[in-house]
Amino acid sequence: MVTSMEKLINHLKTQGFIFQGSEIYGGLANSWDYGPLGAELKQKVKDLWWNYFIRKNHYNLGLDSSIIMNTEVWKNSGHLGNFNDPLIDCKKCKSRFRADKIIEEKFPDFNSGKLTNAQLEDFINKNKIICPKCGSLDYTSIRNFELMFKTNQGVIQDDSSAVYLRPETAQGIFINFKNVQRSLRKKLPFGIGQIGKSFRNEITPGNFIFRTREFEQMELEFFFDPDDKFDWFNYWIEEVENFLTKVLGFKSESYSKRVHEKEELAHYSKATTDFEYNFIFGRGELWGVAHRGDFDLKSHSEGSKHDLTYLDPLTNKKITPNVIEPSVGLERLILAILTESYCEEDIENGTRTVLKLPKKIAPFQLCVLPLQKQQNDQAFNLYTELLKDFDVIYDETGNIGKRYRRQDAIGTPLCVTIDFETENDNCVTIRERDSMNQKRVNLSDLKENLKKEFF
Amino acid sequence: MVTSMEKLINHLKTQGFIFQGSEIYGGLANSWDYGPLGAELKQKVKDLWWNYFIRKNHYNLGLDSSIIMNTEVWKNSGHLGNFNDPLIDCKKCKSRFRADKIIEEKFPDFNSGKLTNAQLEDFINKNKIICPKCGSLDYTSIRNFELMFKTNQGVIQDDSSAVYLRPETAQGIFINFKNVQRSLRKKLPFGIGQIGKSFRNEITPGNFIFRTREFEQMELEFFFDPDDKFDWFNYWIEEVENFLTKVLGFKSESYSKRVHEKEELAHYSKATTDFEYNFIFGRGELWGVAHRGDFDLKSHSEGSKHDLTYLDPLTNKKITPNVIEPSVGLERLILAILTESYCEEDIENGTRTVLKLPKKIAPFQLCVLPLQKQQNDQAFNLYTELLKDFDVIYDETGNIGKRYRRQDAIGTPLCVTIDFETENDNCVTIRERDSMNQKRVNLSDLKENLKKEFF
Repeated sequence: MVTSMEKLINHLKTQGFIFQGSEIYGGLANSWDYGPLGAELKQKVKDLWWNYFIRKNHYNLGLDSSIIMNTEVWKNSGHLGNFNDPLIDCKKCKSRFRADKIIEEKFPDFNSGKLTNAQLEDFINKNKIICPKCGSLDYTSIRNFELMFKTNQGVIQDDSSAVYLRPETAQGIFINFKNVQRSLRKKLPFGIGQIGKSFRNEITPGNFIFRTREFEQMELEFFFDPDDKFDWFNYWIEEVENFLTKVLGFKSESYSKRVHEKEELAHYSKATTDFEYNFIFGRGELWGVAHRGDFDLKSHSEGSKHDLTYLDPLTNKKITPNVIEPSVGLERLILAILTESYCEEDIENGTRTVLKLPKKIAPFQLCVLPLQKQQNDQAFNLYTELLKDFDVIYDETGNIGKRYRRQDAIGTPLCVTIDFETENDNCVTIRERDSMNQKRVNLSDLKENLKKEFF
Repeated sequence: MVTSMEKLINHLKTQGFIFQGSEIYGGLANSWDYGPLGAELKQKVKDLWWNYFIRKNHYNLGLDSSIIMNTEVWKNSGHLGNFNDPLIDCKKCKSRFRADKIIEEKFPDFNSGKLTNAQLEDFINKNKIICPKCGSLDYTSIRNFELMFKTNQGVIQDDSSAVYLRPETAQGIFINFKNVQRSLRKKLPFGIGQIGKSFRNEITPGNFIFRTREFEQMELEFFFDPDDKFDWFNYWIEEVENFLTKVLGFKSESYSKRVHEKEELAHYSKATTDFEYNFIFGRGELWGVAHRGDFDLKSHSEGSKHDLTYLDPLTNKKITPNVIEPSVGLERLILAILTESYCEEDIENGTRTVLKLPKKIAPFQLCVLPLQKQQNDQAFNLYTELLKDFDVIYDETGNIGKRYRRQDAIGTPLCVTIDFETENDNCVTIRERDSMNQKRVNLSDLKENLKKEFF
């Protein structure tokens, strides 16, 4: 487990996982680009999610809806006008803060979710919450700040052409509920999931890739008959936990579940449980499972004048399904995975940094290395041969210890080394990342041997 | 091959491939959402591209850069200020058009790429190109229209906070060239590729998913020493053609290559060859392979004051690499694939619509069907068993002929039917989509048999 955010960020940059966004131009606040290794890691985690929650779950189907949608979607979802932050300015130093955040910094247990702006202002003044920057207690009143990115589509640049970048992938699912149900002739219960970019013009993004303005969500909306006696809410909590522990190998002490108090819930929500991860900077929400009742389908039914109810083929009853929403941000899941897998270990001649990534998501499964220059050709041929079945990297430069360190640092589970003896015994050395154990395997058995490791 | 766009769009909607975006709210111009089958198809095509061009090509690496970047990127790439359309208004009927487009409609071979706005206006007036709407010849002068979507990041909504949605994924690669090269210690030649959304505020989008304002690109930027004698330009043209014909199974008569004339090329470009597909509405660009010289890396080197040259480790020579860019839009590739695979065939009792999709990209590989109600349980168990290894759909409703038609319509290569005899001989019927041939296979051999079909 890594103990310093700076160390982790530096490691990920030098190893080609995550770079500062627009770095050569001085960066762009809170923006990150994923290098070759980060891109592979993200892709593999997305594939695992898609397989687990969509392809291999017989209830569920996938979707891929647009980022830019008709503005009516946001009016009826409640985002336009509501989805915003209460901002306050210090009159002295002109710094700007989120009112709820400066309260929470002083009163960590304070829950500002239900307070009006006037109540927030009142609380700040009564509790003398001074400006975190200059220490004075002289604020403007709160004004709300639109969290959605606004742009214009078409030739004319006025309100009639205003469109928004989606702040969540969920609404694209709700508005397509009927299209999906009808075209696939689905019966309740069933779910629709999608992976895609969302955008929130956050005032206080931060903590590396934990909260960014541009981010990727993996969301499932699971629809069921409210009269269904089965406990779907807990079913999906268990599925999320299975995914974290069994698929991604999270240790049980690394995360905890937090049941939301009644007062925290949105007015339509019946229950919410968050999986919180112990990040380096403290506990943070990783994966939320929310019972949203029938709020979303009802809102869009009313707003669009389209009937989004479901006709039960057995009872002929019209149902507005209830919804369970397990929703996770890809980047913060990546941050949790990297935090979970980063290790520094003392070894014989120094220390090594290892990413103990699960085999399924390591950017490269194998590295092929020649011990000596005259073996380069043979090693490169073996590399291209293994590339047909595995994700492989090739490394011929530097001494062997240094090369093993490099593969440790990027989490490659196995190294295959062509060595002095290969010529004589037709065997290569397989070196395992975590145990650093080595074994010799005949080249003729190599592929079968490796397939057992990965498939 | 499908002959009517309307027929194709209707088929794809009813079968759950592609829905109108924001449909319940009356849609949003030129926006499309991908239903369960379209989402799977897109995902599988992306996976094939990623495997072919990134994972299995030993030269190349992946990347995943941000959609929103520092505005300096667009100033130096030449997009900001240049990347725009020449618009003209009819003074009579107030309709607005792209000046180059109304010329091209009358003079299909006319190439307006190099003309100034004054020259375009001149051409329109001299050739009496009347308003396509009302027939008059009385236009405003041309004004240019910014093609990038503009939005604001942060609290303040003024020019200082203006940011743009990327109009192409390529620039994210160029600005990360050095980061990738350094962290992975790559030697020339090597490529960096990525898949991601781009946005262009087009004035005349259209032809279904062929040209949309929000779209997904699959781009590779391949960097090499300009002194390298190998013909990398033709290497990548061949690779694209291999991918189209050998991986995706395109017929050679469905597309053609078009070599750009000298006058069409951008000033920095040395050569461009487009793969054009014979879409229903006519020929259209599918995949461009462009030789971009050293333009991009030079521009960003100068603009950012960051040295983006490459130091050759053998000669110690500083090189600004040249670039070959094979670039394809995912959605138009999907449209080509669907056009290529759509068939209507006369059969015994009527006609059938079949999507003859390659096995690798069919949304579902298999459908499991029980012939009779009393076999539902057995069939469902077989379905969940096969789901562990394959992408499977289950269908128990309607007569068997109708169910086969449904699977034909969504391109499922094989149907596995539990029938009257299964109970006695422990065999199921496997029915092949294209030939409609059936064979009986013992349940104990089924998985092995199916694996041979797909892997």
